[in-house]
Amino acid sequence: MYEGVNASDGIGIGVARVAVEPDLSFTPHAPEDPEAEKARYAAAVEKFVEQTNAQIERMKQTVGEDAAAIMGAHIEFAEDEGIREMVTGSIDSGMCAEQAVSEAYGTFYTMYANMDDELFRERAADVADVKTGLLADLLGKEVVDLSTLPENSIVVVHELTPSMTADIDKENVAGIVTETGGRTSHSAIIARALEIPAVLSVADATVNIKTGDMVVVDGTNGKVISQPSDHDLEHYRAKAKAFAEEKAALEAYRGKETVTGDGDKKLLVANIGNPDDANAALEHDAEGVGLFRSEFLFMDAKELPSEDEQFAAYQKVALRMKDKPVIIRTLDVGGDKEIPYLHLQKEENPFMGFRAVRYCLNNPDQYKVQLTALLRASAFGDIKIMLPLVTTIDEVRQAKALIEECKHDLDERGVAYNKDIEVGTMIETPAASLIADDLAAECDFFSIGTNDLIGYTMCADRGNDRVSYLYQVYQPAVLRSLKRIIGEGNKAGIMVGMCGEAAADPLLIPILMSFGLDEYSVSAPSILRTRRILSLWTKEEADALAEKVMALKTATEVKAMLQAAAK
Amino acid sequence: MYEGVNASDGIGIGVARVAVEPDLSFTPHAPEDPEAEKARYAAAVEKFVEQTNAQIERMKQTVGEDAAAIMGAHIEFAEDEGIREMVTGSIDSGMCAEQAVSEAYGTFYTMYANMDDELFRERAADVADVKTGLLADLLGKEVVDLSTLPENSIVVVHELTPSMTADIDKENVAGIVTETGGRTSHSAIIARALEIPAVLSVADATVNIKTGDMVVVDGTNGKVISQPSDHDLEHYRAKAKAFAEEKAALEAYRGKETVTGDGDKKLLVANIGNPDDANAALEHDAEGVGLFRSEFLFMDAKELPSEDEQFAAYQKVALRMKDKPVIIRTLDVGGDKEIPYLHLQKEENPFMGFRAVRYCLNNPDQYKVQLTALLRASAFGDIKIMLPLVTTIDEVRQAKALIEECKHDLDERGVAYNKDIEVGTMIETPAASLIADDLAAECDFFSIGTNDLIGYTMCADRGNDRVSYLYQVYQPAVLRSLKRIIGEGNKAGIMVGMCGEAAADPLLIPILMSFGLDEYSVSAPSILRTRRILSLWTKEEADALAEKVMALKTATEVKAMLQAAAK
Repeated sequence: MYEGVNASDGIGIGVARVAVEPDLSFTPHAPEDPEAEKARYAAAVEKFVEQTNAQIERMKQTVGEDAAAIMGAHIEFAEDEGIREMVTGSIDSGMCAEQAVSEAYGTFYTMYANMDDELFRERAADVADVKTGLLADLLGKEVVDLSTLPENSIVVVHELTPSMTADIDKENVAGIVTETGGRTSHSAIIARALEIPAVLSVADATVNIKTGDMVVVDGTNGKVISQPSDHDLEHYRAKAKAFAEEKAALEAYRGKETVTGDGDKKLLVANIGNPDDANAALEHDAEGVGLFRSEFLFMDAKELPSEDEQFAAYQKVALRMKDKPVIIRTLDVGGDKEIPYLHLQKEENPFMGFRAVRYCLNNPDQYKVQLTALLRASAFGDIKIMLPLVTTIDEVRQAKALIEECKHDLDERGVAYNKDIEVGTMIETPAASLIADDLAAECDFFSIGTNDLIGYTMCADRGNDRVSYLYQVYQPAVLRSLKRIIGEGNKAGIMVGMCGEAAADPLLIPILMSFGLDEYSVSAPSILRTRRILSLWTKEEADALAEKVMALKTATEVKAMLQAAAK
Repeated sequence: MYEGVNASDGIGIGVARVAVEPDLSFTPHAPEDPEAEKARYAAAVEKFVEQTNAQIERMKQTVGEDAAAIMGAHIEFAEDEGIREMVTGSIDSGMCAEQAVSEAYGTFYTMYANMDDELFRERAADVADVKTGLLADLLGKEVVDLSTLPENSIVVVHELTPSMTADIDKENVAGIVTETGGRTSHSAIIARALEIPAVLSVADATVNIKTGDMVVVDGTNGKVISQPSDHDLEHYRAKAKAFAEEKAALEAYRGKETVTGDGDKKLLVANIGNPDDANAALEHDAEGVGLFRSEFLFMDAKELPSEDEQFAAYQKVALRMKDKPVIIRTLDVGGDKEIPYLHLQKEENPFMGFRAVRYCLNNPDQYKVQLTALLRASAFGDIKIMLPLVTTIDEVRQAKALIEECKHDLDERGVAYNKDIEVGTMIETPAASLIADDLAAECDFFSIGTNDLIGYTMCADRGNDRVSYLYQVYQPAVLRSLKRIIGEGNKAGIMVGMCGEAAADPLLIPILMSFGLDEYSVSAPSILRTRRILSLWTKEEADALAEKVMALKTATEVKAMLQAAAK
């Protein structure tokens, strides 16, 4: 049994197909005619772009438009002017095309792979993919072809490049195992879109697993079982059946209202990272967007996005979601999210540093660009503004004052916006929990960010394995903080939502319902399951469970009781 | 006006004496007779040790035994066997003594100066001092002599080496200004012991200030005024007078009980960092030790201190404090405190990482060595055990179970200890504040660590200048947390103390008194002032102020109200 990253849910059972990469080694030589060599390179780029475009067309059919768009990065990296100049310059100075391509893309790969941010590191896989494609063409080799696999194949590869994923025929591939990649890698995203169970970052998978081995991929729990016993097989076949049945059963909740067992209406919305995700949210039946993380707009750019660029992105989401609510969080830079062109200082404890609303309020002119873009977009849908990492009333007051300035400027410019736009805050710091009553008096809504709230409350960095036993929503301290926040929001009569991962935790949902949580903002694929769980509990049942849970003293006891009570 | 680190309180007014260091440059040459060269080096070491011992004797008269002990490090570095081998080895391979000494001590200086821990960095000054002393002797130069200054001198130097400080005649030196050094440097410690106002780390002080300039040193606020106006002079003369009067007035509180305006008894104790500090605590009239930071035992060592070594240190404090209470905090490693030989992994957010009680409980055998040493020492005084960074009940229960194991082992060994030793926790995390009622049921006392509690509550690293505006005890969120912790401790009938810097904050003391704080643990020099402030407030007055303060919404308003109410 091997463990890895649970990148795409479900159980896959099948026969291993270990895809070994082609030998792309070569002997560097000085070309006789640099111009001819440059033409070889140009032809390789052209062919690669052609093949990628064909792949994108195939993907549009199999995985949908948004996932296909990921391959656009390949074309960008293949045609990038800076890289092209590096390659042709190297050829001019006496290198062969293979070496020039290998070195230029190698440099970019190293740069991306060593960046201190997961999103940038994931781009490294795209760069490696383009390098492989170009080198294979220059050397006349075929790259791994996953488009013609027999039924029930389990694909085992070192690194699943986006282009390999694109070739995968979901009818024949029962599971995916790789030696690299995280939950946010493009490969993971595509695997989830294709609904193929996947476990990534399994060390030495291509060595330990042989083509022809029977393999079980438990994508839900991040486990891979090679050569399973009859007992294991039986166990996992039952799990696979249950998974398929649960998925089918969840379809019964599509298009339905989100109500508790008493018929009490709750708002069930999605977390999204870019405007295109709004489609997935709607496909999964979300009733709005509870968290649009605007920093992705900034991270994908090379410089600060202009008011018009930001407006276009916010307007796009507003229009797609029509009259459904869309909560957009203002820039949450810092912590684990780096934006190179902002040149923020390296900090000893970045999670406790100069980030999010702190950075924005200290750069008011820059912040007003975003606030103005949000106001303009509010003319096209039900957009609400949300402030991250609030710890004081001052911060909310300062942000609201800036919004008033922006409204005044828009009035002078004669530009339309929603004069009654709602402004709320993330509640994700111990300070915000402690002054929740004061904050509620200044805000139109709360959205609890459990990911950070747990970390700060328990003083445990969520990225640090050594303290993960403390980083749990089931900790009595965390539950008390949640109860307090929701209670104070309810008392003040404002909407209280939750956009952390805990909002989709089936174990926790009855407790959140008992506390009085109004809005559940979850990842798109969790929408239907969350709707189902909410429907299974009456307020009275939830209250009875919550009362027992809140009397417990340890996270272990809490989790055990919630598991025993789970429906 | 120049700003720097406020290293020693008070106002000094006098004439600048800019001490320029001797020219210790030399031309490297190959010695004709390496044995003679080694003898020159040995003679320089011998002379240096002799001079240092004489200095230590002088210091015992002027600054006391503990401060004099600091110079012991000079002798250690001068006689260090490893450094001696480096120097003689270099001479054998053809270097002159000057170069060999310069390179060997230079290597050690760089090593210490680059360590990621302030305490180690401060050792660098000692190494530099020894290098200067040895080189000066080899070159026949005199080092700066500060023992014969005229009255009312303001000493201005690049770096105040411990040996310079030792030579200072406190009768003639009115103030000290340096270009380097922090509040915990040896120089700062000695300046405070000599009660000479000092401002350290003033950039370019030796360039901007000239010998003969009239200079004001405001050691309380970290300000240096060169060539003050008549108006400035008048202002600072009045401040100096007020400072002297306050100091004299505080003497009236020496030997008195610590009582509030109503005659209500409070416990006023000291924070100490090593066994010798217990003397200073007693000299300043402390009623016990509220926090003995045991990590200094570990940081000064090259490997884990043995049970006997630890026992000796704890016993020493217990014996010196006689029957007064001594709370010893178990190892608080990690965060900003590094202990190289424990080989802890570098963390992204060390304050939210694997530190303090987390580390100790994960290394139970190592932890039991400390707990056993503490138990043994409890036979010699009123020692209590305190756990740092608690976030869960489990941690307290696990630690108590380990203490029971240690007691059992000691019973088997037939070694005496206090069977009723009290075990308490620091309350310094948001989680501990939230579960204070549950923790109170498991603990014999609380001690609130405001330094960390403020940081975690506000999500603001206390070492990060960019967020220092948030790192304030006057934040309503922090005050609410303090009120909750003290209230829950009072309800459970356990002693609630505070060992963070806030316990000595004259503005905050009435609020803490109103909340019901029993024990105030402060730095030794703050003892008398804290006793005075406590005596000025009745519970009724404190309650009236606290009620008004707790209704405020911002730290700015809170601080302003406390300043207006200050007595």
